[in-house]
Amino acid sequence: MKNNIKILAVTLAAAIGFTGCAQTQSQNPTGSAYTELATRQGAANAQPGTRNSPPHSTLTPVQDVSPQMQALIGAPYPPHFNADPKNAAEWKELIARRAAPSIAGLPAMKEKMGVTVEPVTIAGVKAFVVTPKNMPPANRGRLLMHIHGGGYVFGPGEAALPEAILLASFGGFKVVSVDYRMPPDFPYPAAMDDAMAVWKELVKTTPPKNMAVFGTSTGGAMTLSLVLRAKTERVPLPGAIAPGTPWSDIAKIGDTYETNEWIDNILVTWDGWLGRAAKLYAGGADLKDPQLSPIYGDFSGFPPSILTTGTRDLFLSNTVRTHRKLRRAGVEADLNVYEGQSHAQYGLNPDAPETKEAFTDIARFFDRHLGR
Amino acid sequence: MKNNIKILAVTLAAAIGFTGCAQTQSQNPTGSAYTELATRQGAANAQPGTRNSPPHSTLTPVQDVSPQMQALIGAPYPPHFNADPKNAAEWKELIARRAAPSIAGLPAMKEKMGVTVEPVTIAGVKAFVVTPKNMPPANRGRLLMHIHGGGYVFGPGEAALPEAILLASFGGFKVVSVDYRMPPDFPYPAAMDDAMAVWKELVKTTPPKNMAVFGTSTGGAMTLSLVLRAKTERVPLPGAIAPGTPWSDIAKIGDTYETNEWIDNILVTWDGWLGRAAKLYAGGADLKDPQLSPIYGDFSGFPPSILTTGTRDLFLSNTVRTHRKLRRAGVEADLNVYEGQSHAQYGLNPDAPETKEAFTDIARFFDRHLGR
Repeated sequence: MKNNIKILAVTLAAAIGFTGCAQTQSQNPTGSAYTELATRQGAANAQPGTRNSPPHSTLTPVQDVSPQMQALIGAPYPPHFNADPKNAAEWKELIARRAAPSIAGLPAMKEKMGVTVEPVTIAGVKAFVVTPKNMPPANRGRLLMHIHGGGYVFGPGEAALPEAILLASFGGFKVVSVDYRMPPDFPYPAAMDDAMAVWKELVKTTPPKNMAVFGTSTGGAMTLSLVLRAKTERVPLPGAIAPGTPWSDIAKIGDTYETNEWIDNILVTWDGWLGRAAKLYAGGADLKDPQLSPIYGDFSGFPPSILTTGTRDLFLSNTVRTHRKLRRAGVEADLNVYEGQSHAQYGLNPDAPETKEAFTDIARFFDRHLGR
Repeated sequence: MKNNIKILAVTLAAAIGFTGCAQTQSQNPTGSAYTELATRQGAANAQPGTRNSPPHSTLTPVQDVSPQMQALIGAPYPPHFNADPKNAAEWKELIARRAAPSIAGLPAMKEKMGVTVEPVTIAGVKAFVVTPKNMPPANRGRLLMHIHGGGYVFGPGEAALPEAILLASFGGFKVVSVDYRMPPDFPYPAAMDDAMAVWKELVKTTPPKNMAVFGTSTGGAMTLSLVLRAKTERVPLPGAIAPGTPWSDIAKIGDTYETNEWIDNILVTWDGWLGRAAKLYAGGADLKDPQLSPIYGDFSGFPPSILTTGTRDLFLSNTVRTHRKLRRAGVEADLNVYEGQSHAQYGLNPDAPETKEAFTDIARFFDRHLGR
């Protein structure tokens, strides 16, 4: 009832042309404007149970952030943040539209980062082998498996290779990137079946302790789910993992789904394309199934893990809940949080010093923990 | 000019009795209300440079958080969040009023946590020695120095002892807690002079590598400033430090000073008592002086460091900027971020499992890095 009244108020405000407070709130009101704001806020937060925050404008630049990252932090929302494809054809059109610029940029990126890419098929699953021109001797018997992100829908084929290229290049590792099947044609558990099939094949030829598995967002969640499934199926575990800002709770559960909603300029809100992709992927399965939301799994016995996120990340809570749960299970778990960054922005621009820093930190962590 | 118009708009809105959007925004608007909101937000964030967020209500409970911590997360703003003492007498009245309940609760806390407290004077500075009843043999030759928080104004005498008691009890360490001089009578650098005098005295009788320095908020900043000053004065450094959510940038510089403003229910906003205390403490000194804002200092050669914060912490950026800067300087630095917590809530309730977890993690880190 109370909620209905709130929704009605929002609807009425929209109907009378009230376009929200966002444009009328100064970043740092001073003098009487600040006093009024503080008084209103104090009154709105004088009872336990609810936190009411006012409209807010935050200006870039943010301190301690490179110009390249400032450009990402200050960028507008992506045009597709609230995309609502109504059928398989509309999903495929959106997926292809988003993949095109990434694929178009690949030749230059491969050249710049000094890697070669070879398409392969492993255990019947499509994949790519990314090989850096410079590989330190210590890494010659090592191999990384990359599981790409994209909300279980985006990043088909070569479109998801940039992250694999970044770690191959900055870390000097050979990387196998799994081009797993995705919705709308292949809902859960096809993606996990593919990742698992590749992992089972890789452990036949490379010692598992010489291998790490990594991925960001959906790829981070799938990395965690892969280890859970390997434990269950008694398949050897990797020597280390790097779940970057993992989508570890696929439902809208986690504090920063609220507090960073409309602040994160990559995902923006769970209620846009993201939650729709979650439901499309799950295909009716329970969103709290640990294979869909690995935060509900048992992390005991997990390999050393390194997690990465940013202060504006919609998945900051997904990341820190995962970090704490790993630590509580006795797992060595490292956490890096980048100033001002929204979701996965640490991997979006190879020229940003923060990108090199993030992937170098992951590479060092792998170097410390992998066999050779 | 543009800013003035914004302030005018806020003032006018207040004058006509418009009490802000906070109460009219549902947590999760659905259907047409969500569509209207997404459309408004898309329009308000279609240009680079500014992030505009709408009013927002966030309900407790937060998942993965204990009932004890839920109570803290859901608590109203503190009544003094916007206190504006006009002179020394008003500051002292506020300081004494806030200290009273903390001091009143100490006898029961000491009993419950199994510690004894002895007032001492070290190098002319008032301090307390906190001794746990249970101390593992490995800790008998070790000693911790505690520098309390409170925005450089709060926590006189025994009022600031709870944190020292928590680490003494959960970690089994003897702790010296420094009761440093504070404004309004003693502005910068009196507090740092006192902390430094105690440290210089302690290194005479205990090997520095057997000692760690820790503190939260202001105490975290002072911990960092102490190491900077010890480097400059060629005084031996501690074997480890734990700057908890350090006030490492005392000015309002840092992304979460904006994004967590009005969300953090402990500090609420820099523009309230907090910024006033910063100016009172600085007494005209440059807020970017590394002794006031240690983020501007040189962290090379720092001892291993463990940092703690929460997703709603106004000082989340202070903490992660410090963490990254330590790592960039080659320092081993660990970071724990707690789900849903505002500033320093990890130390407010000894019965919350998160409190035990945070202090146990710090104690383990010290155990790993201190000599014995």
